[in-house]
Amino acid sequence: QLISDVFPHLKGKLDLKLYPLKITLIPKDIDFSFVALPHGSSAAIIKKLYKRDIKIVDLGADFRISHKKYKKWYGVHKFPELIKNSVYGIPELFKDDILNAKIVANPGCYPTGAILALAPLLKNKIIKEKSIIIDSKSGVTGAGRSPSQDLQFSEVNEGVKAYKVGVHRHMPEIEEVLSNFSGLDVDIHFTPHLIPMDRGIMSTIYVDLKKPSNTSKLLRIYKDFYKNSLFVRICQDGKYPSTSDVKGSNYCDIAIKAHREKNSATVVSVIDNLVKGASGQAIQNMNIIMGFPESMGSSNSPVFP
Amino acid sequence: QLISDVFPHLKGKLDLKLYPLKITLIPKDIDFSFVALPHGSSAAIIKKLYKRDIKIVDLGADFRISHKKYKKWYGVHKFPELIKNSVYGIPELFKDDILNAKIVANPGCYPTGAILALAPLLKNKIIKEKSIIIDSKSGVTGAGRSPSQDLQFSEVNEGVKAYKVGVHRHMPEIEEVLSNFSGLDVDIHFTPHLIPMDRGIMSTIYVDLKKPSNTSKLLRIYKDFYKNSLFVRICQDGKYPSTSDVKGSNYCDIAIKAHREKNSATVVSVIDNLVKGASGQAIQNMNIIMGFPESMGSSNSPVFP
Amino acid sequence: QLISDVFPHLKGKLDLKLYPLKITLIPKDIDFSFVALPHGSSAAIIKKLYKRDIKIVDLGADFRISHKKYKKWYGVHKFPELIKNSVYGIPELFKDDILNAKIVANPGCYPTGAILALAPLLKNKIIKEKSIIIDSKSGVTGAGRSPSQDLQFSEVNEGVKAYKVGVHRHMPEIEEVLSNFSGLDVDIHFTPHLIPMDRGIMSTIYVDLKKPSNTSKLLRIYKDFYKNSLFVRICQDGKYPSTSDVKGSNYCDIAIKAHREKNSATVVSVIDNLVKGASGQAIQNMNIIMGFPESMGSSNSPVFP
Amino acid sequence: QLISDVFPHLKGKLDLKLYPLKITLIPKDIDFSFVALPHGSSAAIIKKLYKRDIKIVDLGADFRISHKKYKKWYGVHKFPELIKNSVYGIPELFKDDILNAKIVANPGCYPTGAILALAPLLKNKIIKEKSIIIDSKSGVTGAGRSPSQDLQFSEVNEGVKAYKVGVHRHMPEIEEVLSNFSGLDVDIHFTPHLIPMDRGIMSTIYVDLKKPSNTSKLLRIYKDFYKNSLFVRICQDGKYPSTSDVKGSNYCDIAIKAHREKNSATVVSVIDNLVKGASGQAIQNMNIIMGFPESMGSSNSPVFP
Repeated sequence: QLISDVFPHLKGKLDLKLYPLKITLIPKDIDFSFVALPHGSSAAIIKKLYKRDIKIVDLGADFRISHKKYKKWYGVHKFPELIKNSVYGIPELFKDDILNAKIVANPGCYPTGAILALAPLLKNKIIKEKSIIIDSKSGVTGAGRSPSQDLQFSEVNEGVKAYKVGVHRHMPEIEEVLSNFSGLDVDIHFTPHLIPMDRGIMSTIYVDLKKPSNTSKLLRIYKDFYKNSLFVRICQDGKYPSTSDVKGSNYCDIAIKAHREKNSATVVSVIDNLVKGASGQAIQNMNIIMGFPESMGSSNSPVFP
Repeated sequence: QLISDVFPHLKGKLDLKLYPLKITLIPKDIDFSFVALPHGSSAAIIKKLYKRDIKIVDLGADFRISHKKYKKWYGVHKFPELIKNSVYGIPELFKDDILNAKIVANPGCYPTGAILALAPLLKNKIIKEKSIIIDSKSGVTGAGRSPSQDLQFSEVNEGVKAYKVGVHRHMPEIEEVLSNFSGLDVDIHFTPHLIPMDRGIMSTIYVDLKKPSNTSKLLRIYKDFYKNSLFVRICQDGKYPSTSDVKGSNYCDIAIKAHREKNSATVVSVIDNLVKGASGQAIQNMNIIMGFPESMGSSNSPVFP
Repeated sequence: QLISDVFPHLKGKLDLKLYPLKITLIPKDIDFSFVALPHGSSAAIIKKLYKRDIKIVDLGADFRISHKKYKKWYGVHKFPELIKNSVYGIPELFKDDILNAKIVANPGCYPTGAILALAPLLKNKIIKEKSIIIDSKSGVTGAGRSPSQDLQFSEVNEGVKAYKVGVHRHMPEIEEVLSNFSGLDVDIHFTPHLIPMDRGIMSTIYVDLKKPSNTSKLLRIYKDFYKNSLFVRICQDGKYPSTSDVKGSNYCDIAIKAHREKNSATVVSVIDNLVKGASGQAIQNMNIIMGFPESMGSSNSPVFP
Repeated sequence: QLISDVFPHLKGKLDLKLYPLKITLIPKDIDFSFVALPHGSSAAIIKKLYKRDIKIVDLGADFRISHKKYKKWYGVHKFPELIKNSVYGIPELFKDDILNAKIVANPGCYPTGAILALAPLLKNKIIKEKSIIIDSKSGVTGAGRSPSQDLQFSEVNEGVKAYKVGVHRHMPEIEEVLSNFSGLDVDIHFTPHLIPMDRGIMSTIYVDLKKPSNTSKLLRIYKDFYKNSLFVRICQDGKYPSTSDVKGSNYCDIAIKAHREKNSATVVSVIDNLVKGASGQAIQNMNIIMGFPESMGSSNSPVFP
């Protein structure tokens, strides 16, 4: 079977043959591999690749959170000893770790946008780390391509739906990564919503400020924090991004608004869940591990409309 | 011009002739009138109708909030003396007032769903009244039918956008109505979002509990609170409504989930912004004023898909 | 299981219990039954109902076409002897037959709009009956509610697709019904397309005129032909209907445009495939069989947007 | 004003400053120019560019059709003497002319897909050139970005609409170009439809064969005809393209199906109206005029979903 049989839009552009997943079919001289399997299914193949000294970016969930949290939220982990050899793959925050990593856990789609939006505030101790509210809206591709009645066109179209309220597996991922990054014990509320569109995740985030501030000050902190990040764009005061601004690209656009009277702020971040939230970030991680230019293969403009 | 020229779907069903708005064209013997004009434009006509002792449901914003707040958020009010003769038109909360009203201020679309979701919790003193978070997602009809680039199909489609973050006029309306209803000084954060669909508003609301509770207890409070309300449906534990569940109907569906470890809860409400959020509620208010059965003319099922 | 478990929007409105399909569970004293099963599955139950003298509207395909065509396009028919006792259920064309029928074959969704658009022209011998082109565009509900990858939101959204070009089972149905109705040997080309919307079918139909005519004359023929039809609306010259004009209603809207230089015409018809193309027409047929007013239960306005 | 103010998705990627259109602001040493103005508005600027020996690709309509047809369908042409110096810019058919052109008329969006679908059949004298039916379905971007009630989200969403039936200006363009190309007097029926999606045009085309043929033979003719065309892909027997297969790319995908019993065939072509139907084809034309590789700048894969 050709990949263009599965994805007809690639015909003539990419007609690679697909092979069954057998370690013996993997050529001897490869240096790097993407693994994109459901959680639990990737551990065996990753172990074999790891032994052959092949660097890995894993798009599944097996190496995203600590063993303790994994057991609680996913179940038995088949090769927990590999967890300590993996790093979490948000290059804007963990580039030095990724440079030397053998296994990079490519983040979940929701965590990517939420973590990028909160990292500057937590690192600079500007907000209270407890009861942060993350209200996320995702396009339908976030749920994968397997047939299910819930994802049929006419079930999803013309409706918005909240799901897994307070119990989504990306909640502990966000909490743990932000806690590790900031040194604080971060605690969030997280509600994902399904939106009738193909791509894109918006996270609207509500935070309490530790001391009075204003939008200009906060914007300066964001711009400074991300001054070397190719794929993060900070919106000017009063502008809010649409997910369509980043569609098809590896960008994360972030806006922030301080509410002076309430000593609080609202942060909005948008990503394309299939690019910065999945394969685009995976490529960015590969580029870093392999010493390639960070934006290689992900340098396209967003596609609008 | 016929109304079926403006709305071709009504041809053969409703071919009423449209007249220019002149008070002299209004027949002598009418008892009741809907007024649906932009804020500021309705005061003059309402004053004349009021003097002729015609009962009014006003779908505009002029009588929704106190004079003090009106001046701050909308500007000069032309007939402030009429404000005290008006009542706020959410029948589930203010039915007794509406029964005797001469002017009913039909609520804004966002306030309707948000207020219905919060009223039982505030009335029963279950949640903290400060820093309630209301994250709302609206279909495009919420923005009216006037041409604007922002609302063109390809600007809206395949994107989610936050707007008027922290400065939307429905924020003071929600705060004032809930404060009046509960006797508390309610304070909210409110972020509206534009979603690529025609109809529907979902409000996802984050509240802190004053003391530990659980989902079952909270559900009982809601069911009891709304036990006589024809148009409010409470979802069973673990089910969350889609806006498509209420499309075309006057229903407001509400779900609640307690987070025991965090001493907090998430409430989700959905309405059709054109029905319960506008004309359906207006009809419900008219029915109450005029002594008709409350569901007359609004008894249709939701339309799915 | 309640019907409101399958369709949550009906909760509180219609909470009927669903039973397994057993002929013994059907009460003794019923007069009428809808049967809505896949083709081939309904014959057995229909036979039993028929023997008990229960009148039937069958929403499946088993009684729509002659036995000869059925064998070619569907396969073995289980009770061909019942076919001769059934009539085709487009009330605008076959009301007298339906009045006395015991089994009404409720038409397919595509045939309904196409046949209503062509009947006046064929009956009046205005067009050539060979090589009529019917290009139809359908919303996704036309394909049913069973999960399939082809009907996932992100497969359908933002794309148009032709399918079963020249081989769709509704082609022989249209040909046979129009031939029977007009006494001509009608021959069509039919291409169905899947459109990213929930409801609605538009058929754009290209016909050659037998002798020169113009739009006004043709419009008069349509208006005269459908002067007693409650559910057919003819558009005025130069106006073309959108499927959204009939959404949620039992209407079929038809427009026609003559091309004088080319001695041809284009006809456009729209229906809601779930109403006039399925359950609405079924109710209309039931009303006729049972002697109820024809529009009973289908008198709602279209819902726009 | 920056282009990224008009299109926020380009921020950081393309922040070019926009200038008012003054010929004096155009640098002395430029070789080539795109002109993208409404018909009638481009003639003056094009004349000036032409005199300065600057090669031009005009995305407007002024040079697409003969002066005689222009007067009938558009009105007065300001510089008819320039028309004879222009060539029609479909590189797959007119590459030799484009190589030596000074003005290339970039084709309309509908004509591109329709002409590419019909050219092989007409060139090879396989079909009757009279009464060809072209039924086209376009996404909303085809109508431009200016605000208009007809193009508001909720007017377009959940509906299909035919417009300008038999009177669209692209009809004479298709007829004239195909007549010139084939040496026949081609005559078409053309109906454009508006579909609720952003991008893409599908044309479903109905033709009568001059003598019996079959799908395999016809496919071979297409494959042979386009064997050197980078941007045309022919679908295998029984597969039909979706507009989503070419979204964001310069491809035109074509399928054909012969109906042996009816001595006819159905052809389906899809393009992205904003790429192969506009700017992508303009770039392709520029590349040819300027001696650049034909696919330079248009080599991206389609974006799905």
